[in-house]
Amino acid sequence: MPEHKRLALGIDLGGTAIKVGVVTHKGEIIGRGERATEVQKGAQGVIANMAAAARDAMDAAGVTVADLEGAGVGAPGICDAARGIVVRAVNLDWDNVEVAEALGKALGLPAYLDNDANCAALGEQWCGAASGSHHALMITLGTGVGGGLVLDGKIYHGFRGWSGEFGHMPAVDNGPACNCGRRGCVETVASATAMANFARREIEAGRAPYMAAKAAEQGGKVDARLVIYAAREGDAAAVGVLREVGEHLGLAMAGLVGALNPELIVVGGGGSHAGDFVLEPMRKVIREKAMPGPADVVQVVPAELGNDAGLIGAASLVWR
Amino acid sequence: MPEHKRLALGIDLGGTAIKVGVVTHKGEIIGRGERATEVQKGAQGVIANMAAAARDAMDAAGVTVADLEGAGVGAPGICDAARGIVVRAVNLDWDNVEVAEALGKALGLPAYLDNDANCAALGEQWCGAASGSHHALMITLGTGVGGGLVLDGKIYHGFRGWSGEFGHMPAVDNGPACNCGRRGCVETVASATAMANFARREIEAGRAPYMAAKAAEQGGKVDARLVIYAAREGDAAAVGVLREVGEHLGLAMAGLVGALNPELIVVGGGGSHAGDFVLEPMRKVIREKAMPGPADVVQVVPAELGNDAGLIGAASLVWR
Repeated sequence: MPEHKRLALGIDLGGTAIKVGVVTHKGEIIGRGERATEVQKGAQGVIANMAAAARDAMDAAGVTVADLEGAGVGAPGICDAARGIVVRAVNLDWDNVEVAEALGKALGLPAYLDNDANCAALGEQWCGAASGSHHALMITLGTGVGGGLVLDGKIYHGFRGWSGEFGHMPAVDNGPACNCGRRGCVETVASATAMANFARREIEAGRAPYMAAKAAEQGGKVDARLVIYAAREGDAAAVGVLREVGEHLGLAMAGLVGALNPELIVVGGGGSHAGDFVLEPMRKVIREKAMPGPADVVQVVPAELGNDAGLIGAASLVWR
Repeated sequence: MPEHKRLALGIDLGGTAIKVGVVTHKGEIIGRGERATEVQKGAQGVIANMAAAARDAMDAAGVTVADLEGAGVGAPGICDAARGIVVRAVNLDWDNVEVAEALGKALGLPAYLDNDANCAALGEQWCGAASGSHHALMITLGTGVGGGLVLDGKIYHGFRGWSGEFGHMPAVDNGPACNCGRRGCVETVASATAMANFARREIEAGRAPYMAAKAAEQGGKVDARLVIYAAREGDAAAVGVLREVGEHLGLAMAGLVGALNPELIVVGGGGSHAGDFVLEPMRKVIREKAMPGPADVVQVVPAELGNDAGLIGAASLVWR
């Protein structure tokens, strides 16, 4: 079969929606499907929804199962990639669900699975910001902070498949309370949530009148989007909040730069829309605090695939 | 040839001495040789000394070159393992020395090379404290702090071969000055040197009369050995110094535990003779500060092979 005709399904399984793409061997999406996850239907119901969304995507692309080489799933939580199992996913309320096997049967295709953050890293490495790099760390700034490691060209899963928890590395002694039950984890000071929290702190202290006014326009709501908008408009308080987040991120990654000597750090997720407002202070702290040598060669770059990174990376599981 | 007869040379190239062992396929040393490094003789002179020490080891083991399958070298500094080159070694004053090729010619054997810390990690993974583990971090507490990573069963070298620099991860904001030119690196607060420095601080503050008396007995010299001795004798100040070092180590490794999900952290080097005086506070901080899950499964253990780890690991390069 000619290279351009090789196709796979990439499936991004989220807590609220299932997004599917028919993906070419070059990483292009030629058809999409989307269904609600419907967690309340249980694992078999969710897997049926995944299969339905997959059929929608095939219809949109004008292909059938016979045209596809397999399906890859990016799933939330702790996964056993080798066995295709979701070991524990809090937001799906799943324990030990054999997703790959059940989905493979439903679709009549070989199916594979990995953690969603790992799939995003794979996607960026395959045809995004880390294209061609064999040594890349992917960090996503969302409600929390997720991560994935591409080491020697492959996802590094660690001893139990729990690697990449950049969001829960210790960052600030006695820092803000974290969802994990501890204090001062990276994601308490360096996520999209942290951007909003720091902005709220500045507004409450009366140091951020521009953001206060903008927040009032949207019913008092302060989120990362507002902070990034204000920074682009030149608001110094917003720029300062994003600098603070970038410096925390830089310090957290500085240790990993010396320990792992990565070529690239790819920053994705909603918070990465802050661009150089976060990346420049991050780079500065890495240059100052990380081991000279590794600090000189590492590049900090924004992700390129946006919300499709996980879906595209999931499809690539079929060819790995 | 029967398994037990398979032999290789393991060579530990240090700044002052070259130590060689004839190593069996089971990791036993059956003959040793040692020569001064003689850095002043230049790279070719040092390589000739390596070959001479290797012949001493063969004589001691009663074997000839015909009995050996190859030679492995653990070298200080930055190495290009794939090409067998020492890229930069400050304490040898070497730049781009093709050690493996030159030594291989001198001995008439295939020769391999890796960084000394990586070789120590390989040795411990092959037949020491990390035996059989595919996910182990090795950290050595000496004058500085070195490290090596065994990920998915292999040494992880990173983008340029500079991985494992655990000693230069940032630990303390505006901490003690480090040899690397920055401040507060892990090795300024968590090496054998740091043990001595913290003890000196306690003695000077009048809080460590027992260590002060012991130091006076040896002409005022305060070193890690003295601190460890005093701790074993029950001196609270010495125990406190080792706790402080262990807590700094634990915090530094807590981030790596979440990022990499290792099975084992193996602590070696002279400072590791402090045993549980350092390892227990280290374990405690990891449990408190690292991501639950990874923090629950990681084990922190002392190295087992002592000064032979690098030599044994170097020999194992021949069979990898």
